[in-house]
Amino acid sequence: MHNLEEIPEIRGLDSRSGLIRIPHEMDVPITPRVRQLIDTAEFHRLTRVSQLGLVSLVYPAAHHTRFEHSLGVYRNALLYLRQLSADERFRAAIKTEDGELLIVAALLHDLGHWPFCHPIEDMKLPSVPSHEMFANSFLLEGEVADCLRDDWGIQPRDVTTILSEKPRDTRQRILKSLMSGPIDIDKMDYLPRDSLHAGVPYGRNFDAQRLIGSLCLNQAGDGLALTDKGRTAAEMMVFARYVMFSEVYWHHTVRSATAMLQRGFYLLHGELDLDALFRMAEPAFIQHVLTASERHPAADLFGGLFGPTRRLYKRIAEFSFFQKRPYYEQFARRPYTWLAVCSDHLAEILSQQIARRVAPHEILFDAPPVKREVEFNVEIHFAKENTYRTLGEVSPVVKTLAQSQFDDYVKRVRIFVHPRLQEDLRQQDSLDTALDETLRRMA
Amino acid sequence: MHNLEEIPEIRGLDSRSGLIRIPHEMDVPITPRVRQLIDTAEFHRLTRVSQLGLVSLVYPAAHHTRFEHSLGVYRNALLYLRQLSADERFRAAIKTEDGELLIVAALLHDLGHWPFCHPIEDMKLPSVPSHEMFANSFLLEGEVADCLRDDWGIQPRDVTTILSEKPRDTRQRILKSLMSGPIDIDKMDYLPRDSLHAGVPYGRNFDAQRLIGSLCLNQAGDGLALTDKGRTAAEMMVFARYVMFSEVYWHHTVRSATAMLQRGFYLLHGELDLDALFRMAEPAFIQHVLTASERHPAADLFGGLFGPTRRLYKRIAEFSFFQKRPYYEQFARRPYTWLAVCSDHLAEILSQQIARRVAPHEILFDAPPVKREVEFNVEIHFAKENTYRTLGEVSPVVKTLAQSQFDDYVKRVRIFVHPRLQEDLRQQDSLDTALDETLRRMA
Amino acid sequence: MHNLEEIPEIRGLDSRSGLIRIPHEMDVPITPRVRQLIDTAEFHRLTRVSQLGLVSLVYPAAHHTRFEHSLGVYRNALLYLRQLSADERFRAAIKTEDGELLIVAALLHDLGHWPFCHPIEDMKLPSVPSHEMFANSFLLEGEVADCLRDDWGIQPRDVTTILSEKPRDTRQRILKSLMSGPIDIDKMDYLPRDSLHAGVPYGRNFDAQRLIGSLCLNQAGDGLALTDKGRTAAEMMVFARYVMFSEVYWHHTVRSATAMLQRGFYLLHGELDLDALFRMAEPAFIQHVLTASERHPAADLFGGLFGPTRRLYKRIAEFSFFQKRPYYEQFARRPYTWLAVCSDHLAEILSQQIARRVAPHEILFDAPPVKREVEFNVEIHFAKENTYRTLGEVSPVVKTLAQSQFDDYVKRVRIFVHPRLQEDLRQQDSLDTALDETLRRMA
Amino acid sequence: MHNLEEIPEIRGLDSRSGLIRIPHEMDVPITPRVRQLIDTAEFHRLTRVSQLGLVSLVYPAAHHTRFEHSLGVYRNALLYLRQLSADERFRAAIKTEDGELLIVAALLHDLGHWPFCHPIEDMKLPSVPSHEMFANSFLLEGEVADCLRDDWGIQPRDVTTILSEKPRDTRQRILKSLMSGPIDIDKMDYLPRDSLHAGVPYGRNFDAQRLIGSLCLNQAGDGLALTDKGRTAAEMMVFARYVMFSEVYWHHTVRSATAMLQRGFYLLHGELDLDALFRMAEPAFIQHVLTASERHPAADLFGGLFGPTRRLYKRIAEFSFFQKRPYYEQFARRPYTWLAVCSDHLAEILSQQIARRVAPHEILFDAPPVKREVEFNVEIHFAKENTYRTLGEVSPVVKTLAQSQFDDYVKRVRIFVHPRLQEDLRQQDSLDTALDETLRRMA
Repeated sequence: MHNLEEIPEIRGLDSRSGLIRIPHEMDVPITPRVRQLIDTAEFHRLTRVSQLGLVSLVYPAAHHTRFEHSLGVYRNALLYLRQLSADERFRAAIKTEDGELLIVAALLHDLGHWPFCHPIEDMKLPSVPSHEMFANSFLLEGEVADCLRDDWGIQPRDVTTILSEKPRDTRQRILKSLMSGPIDIDKMDYLPRDSLHAGVPYGRNFDAQRLIGSLCLNQAGDGLALTDKGRTAAEMMVFARYVMFSEVYWHHTVRSATAMLQRGFYLLHGELDLDALFRMAEPAFIQHVLTASERHPAADLFGGLFGPTRRLYKRIAEFSFFQKRPYYEQFARRPYTWLAVCSDHLAEILSQQIARRVAPHEILFDAPPVKREVEFNVEIHFAKENTYRTLGEVSPVVKTLAQSQFDDYVKRVRIFVHPRLQEDLRQQDSLDTALDETLRRMA
Repeated sequence: MHNLEEIPEIRGLDSRSGLIRIPHEMDVPITPRVRQLIDTAEFHRLTRVSQLGLVSLVYPAAHHTRFEHSLGVYRNALLYLRQLSADERFRAAIKTEDGELLIVAALLHDLGHWPFCHPIEDMKLPSVPSHEMFANSFLLEGEVADCLRDDWGIQPRDVTTILSEKPRDTRQRILKSLMSGPIDIDKMDYLPRDSLHAGVPYGRNFDAQRLIGSLCLNQAGDGLALTDKGRTAAEMMVFARYVMFSEVYWHHTVRSATAMLQRGFYLLHGELDLDALFRMAEPAFIQHVLTASERHPAADLFGGLFGPTRRLYKRIAEFSFFQKRPYYEQFARRPYTWLAVCSDHLAEILSQQIARRVAPHEILFDAPPVKREVEFNVEIHFAKENTYRTLGEVSPVVKTLAQSQFDDYVKRVRIFVHPRLQEDLRQQDSLDTALDETLRRMA
Repeated sequence: MHNLEEIPEIRGLDSRSGLIRIPHEMDVPITPRVRQLIDTAEFHRLTRVSQLGLVSLVYPAAHHTRFEHSLGVYRNALLYLRQLSADERFRAAIKTEDGELLIVAALLHDLGHWPFCHPIEDMKLPSVPSHEMFANSFLLEGEVADCLRDDWGIQPRDVTTILSEKPRDTRQRILKSLMSGPIDIDKMDYLPRDSLHAGVPYGRNFDAQRLIGSLCLNQAGDGLALTDKGRTAAEMMVFARYVMFSEVYWHHTVRSATAMLQRGFYLLHGELDLDALFRMAEPAFIQHVLTASERHPAADLFGGLFGPTRRLYKRIAEFSFFQKRPYYEQFARRPYTWLAVCSDHLAEILSQQIARRVAPHEILFDAPPVKREVEFNVEIHFAKENTYRTLGEVSPVVKTLAQSQFDDYVKRVRIFVHPRLQEDLRQQDSLDTALDETLRRMA
Repeated sequence: MHNLEEIPEIRGLDSRSGLIRIPHEMDVPITPRVRQLIDTAEFHRLTRVSQLGLVSLVYPAAHHTRFEHSLGVYRNALLYLRQLSADERFRAAIKTEDGELLIVAALLHDLGHWPFCHPIEDMKLPSVPSHEMFANSFLLEGEVADCLRDDWGIQPRDVTTILSEKPRDTRQRILKSLMSGPIDIDKMDYLPRDSLHAGVPYGRNFDAQRLIGSLCLNQAGDGLALTDKGRTAAEMMVFARYVMFSEVYWHHTVRSATAMLQRGFYLLHGELDLDALFRMAEPAFIQHVLTASERHPAADLFGGLFGPTRRLYKRIAEFSFFQKRPYYEQFARRPYTWLAVCSDHLAEILSQQIARRVAPHEILFDAPPVKREVEFNVEIHFAKENTYRTLGEVSPVVKTLAQSQFDDYVKRVRIFVHPRLQEDLRQQDSLDTALDETLRRMA
């Protein structure tokens, strides 16, 4: 095998047999060695882990799985490699074995994902591993590791390096930039896929064809870039991501459910065997936390999410750059534990105000996390002048999206309360008073 | 409220608030009284019952739920009613309260669906109720019944009448024909929806807009019909249904999984509390049969479907009208128990042939069921001549689909075996000998 | 260059530069030697010849051109060749130079199309050449011929052989079967393209991806066939074609316009320089016939089609297999001149009936042409059994479409009259009398 | 008729008969009085005026007409009115007769469009009327005026007021804001329509359904606004418009063709009967300028655009905010005549530099016009707080698009030259020298 295009999976893009079909009318080539990987128990588990978790409480069709998504990302790896194999510098840096490494990394990139992984990670609790680290336990030993060694001639450690370590050389930096960055193979799959299954048009319109067709290397030769033919397509993808955040991922009801899950997990996590829990598929995970939280305040939260009927907390306040900005600035980008203490104080203050007991877990603060969304820095190669400029430099709109729209406008501070309290807490003035008092106590 | 168009849900089609969005970019109007119904535990259960069951083992994205589908059928009811409200004879026969009855019947039509309902019903086991009958227990008492009476002013018994009884008068015949027939509101939803989530183009192309736009009543005034403007759209819908059967519902691997489930259930059902089982959501159902089948032959079958890895039976023979037709005619349209006895005999005969033990449950016969798919008889109204003709009369292609393509060409006889036997049973000649012997014993 | 995949245009499918974009979001690779061909005056003329001619009088968006369609067919040639290059027998029969011959034949297949070509050809007038023959004058000399010889190393005569002569050997038979047959590269483009521009869903739903992916050679090794994986896709394409005929190509108003054009041309053609006319682009063609028909009965017909306002003839009768079948059988499949004489007689008879002058050209008969649509015979290869069966054999629905639906149900006999006569001729009974008399005179 | 929903055309949205179908699968209701209007010669002319003019030289499928677009805008008027009829303040301000006025204004808004209207208007030549003014001659007398008065009971003068005059009262301001503004019925049609026919995905993704569903009135009650549910949809529409400008309307090759047309018209316009010319359909217009320019420098320009072969000028330089910004600032936003004089000077200077005659019309400057694209100011109503904020205030990305992206980044300064000069003028350094000298002379 002398070049990237000869990799069996890449050839499979045209071969039309041994295919799995996923939306939207996408054929994924399945070679025998890919079949081996996806038929392991570890990978098969992903058929029972949903991609969007709590989003289906708002968009009831969004039940697609990490399995489906992983196939999509794997296919994108093939498309990116085929395209980049036409780039001389890429061919010089990335050999066939590197291409195959990328392919398995793409396929396996979510292997460590446990149910509701992102909101749990966002809380930064010390006892919770990162899902990348957690994945190592699936990758370094067992059936997947055997398959990598025997069928692919790949050392499992090389896969975990690409997936979870800082790149140390040009080759690793290139591979990493395909896996993770503003135009990576992951976003290229999940934006349109989440959009399709949710039933919304928001994440689909970015001309993937044009974008892939303009892939090249950056000036330094160590990362993904685009020719200027792909500039608009890249802007479209950044914009599509913004809209998906605004309308789906950070939809206020989704955030209510997320805040409930986070608080429930926060309250209960000391009593859970996290290692066992994180190896479960979603139905077992849900059953487990429901059982574990019996006779525990968390029961109220998990029951509302996963019980026989849906009972979500209600929004009583919302703050952003243009809505009561001073409050927004007080609560945004605070550690989860700080917000949890705020809840305690506010519950106590409100108990007095409305003269009935408000339990701490009946008040939830949801706020933009400490870490801002990454910048959208990808280089654009202007072929005629042979110069490279960053996308932000040639696109004010991308610069704006990166610098303010996402974190300051989409992600808002919200206060959610148990539905039985909603009526009592309607009055905005007294809420402000209570918030002021809460902040005084936190000072 | 004087006419159908004033029904709040129908008005909601244009109102743009209180909407749930489902694919493909479809807004479903949710009035308070609809919200009451879908928030009951009985209805909420449908968020955890998949629409296509075992199909996701072949089309891994097909995880959509009966909840989503029910919303789609409900929305179709609104569209059909709005369209038909322009038809004088329809307006004379169907009053506002009948329209509302249809609306709740549409929303609740799958309330009695238990997981993997269709393949289990197809076996015609005496201890298994029909899902329509089973639904009555959800409809006639409990939260749904209360809501129907209190919020809708509808007697629960009237809903079960429409859903599961033979119509007795014109009014009932009309409502029934909207719920069930060649162009009913159910197929109008599931064909495109299954297609979309499976990732295939087959069930989507039938110009629903044109079809709905040409709805009218038949000559007798007691059933749904179409004006001649909708003739081609109706042909397209019948054809789309054929293709979905061919490529999805009766895909040979789907049939393998179905045959496994049926045999597992057949073996185990005497030991199950069916009433309790059929009230469970899908994850609990699966967990239950896995647990119940421990140390039982059915464990092999359920484990292959629902265990940590997928292990499906392999096809070793296939018979149809054009492939070894005599075998096809021997096995098609036989009762399930008859086929099960065939398995026993064949297992015994093959055990001798290959000189190793073949367990009865390792051999599965799958064959077209006794009941043929319904005929596609819907009347077409030729306005210029003011005559009614059946669709089959003016469309040879529909007549052909109805009379032979579905049941004789798509639905085939197949023999599936445990994968460990596949190699041993490759030889076609000796299989024919064994089949001949099997048939001799059955004679 | 050793194999088909190395042909620059086929490589261009992945290259993403030098592309022309056409709907639906399709990138067509344009190599320098393709650019040379499409920039000739002969080919550029196709930018001003519409694909569907008079259809835009009914579907006002259907203004797409033969230029766009030719690019689509050319691209299909690349896709078919790339797919078939994986087939051993194909590779043995079709060398690189044959592949290139197919590519230019695909690109140039409509070069001889003059405006409104099909309805004019359908009349079988002795002075009208076939458009394939007419194309030879563009292909065998001039700029296109030079370009073929110089840039492609192809003899123009070889192109005309593929396009307009009976194939004489295996190689030619294979190439011809790609250009013309039930699943050829031409229909594969025009069905979805016409559908898209007309704004209808009918011609788009046939899973082109699956169809192309299952291309192979027939049993004799001298023509296109499909593996059984493509069987349903082929049925879908045949069905899509039927629906397009029913709803677009043979729409009754399109047929009215077509009948007007045919009669106008029939009346005027003796006075036209057809060789010059057929070399014109559509606007010049239209201008020319408008000018030539001044003070001529044809003016009424051309004016209604191309004048400042649209004025189409009205349908006063329609006959088919299920509508007054005896009339249908009398008029279907008759030569154009025979039908024209019918008009003369009928005009005379009606003049007496309604006691006012009816001019012969005010009555138009439109009927299914003498030649039936070709049968849909393509072989399907059943790989497991290694047998070949015709599509009709394994698909009753295709057999039905081929044998009756198209020619006997879609194509009807219609009588159109000048709008000023419509009121007078409303009475059906007297029309029957007049028709009977007309047929007596024709006997 | 007591309310807006009873207007026959609005009722026709649901009625399904008397429809014209246009892409994308859109049914346009045609009542008898609409049929009267579109069958006039003035309106029928729009079937032969293309929507995008020269764009089809780059996107060869973009041949759609002003006729199709006008039907789409008319349909949008119906959708907007139906939606807004649910708004109390709208109902109070806009009576049935105002709704009907809007409907005809929407249908007729492009009646005065002559072929290639926009680039010709952009030059601001004193002898060229605005197309709105020109439309008055079609609207105030003749068949259209008769039809308005007789069939609609509308004074033609009221239509021209809405279309071309400054609104003078609340009622007029509201109607005007539906016709022209950031989310008007015109853009709502042409963005997706141009996108579809061009074959690109750029202008289609803005959730029209959601946008229409959130229409309301602004705080002052005299213009279109959106509820906050439509905020993201509005951002998407503004963004889609940006991408269409970037990739289609201001595509560099489209600009080359536009610059050629403008110069040709500039050179020839003194010799043309503009009033007659602007009443022609596109084919006649083209024929006319080709004939008129014989033996005139303009022949070279028109011949390259409309002659038997395509021969477009080539870009030799491009300046923008990030490419040689000082040049950009010198040439942007200058009057057309100023740029024409630049060409003259530059031609003379280059003639000396390359020592061969460069004709003035062989050098074309293309630059952003004097007038900037309008701001995207539309109010958003935040229902919970009952406050109105401008879209720019709550969306940094829209503010950025409005203030810089469009005019400073998309619209660039370009220099195009006759293809025979391209080789000679490749050298960038000497071009800079020549430009500097040109600017010195212009100072």
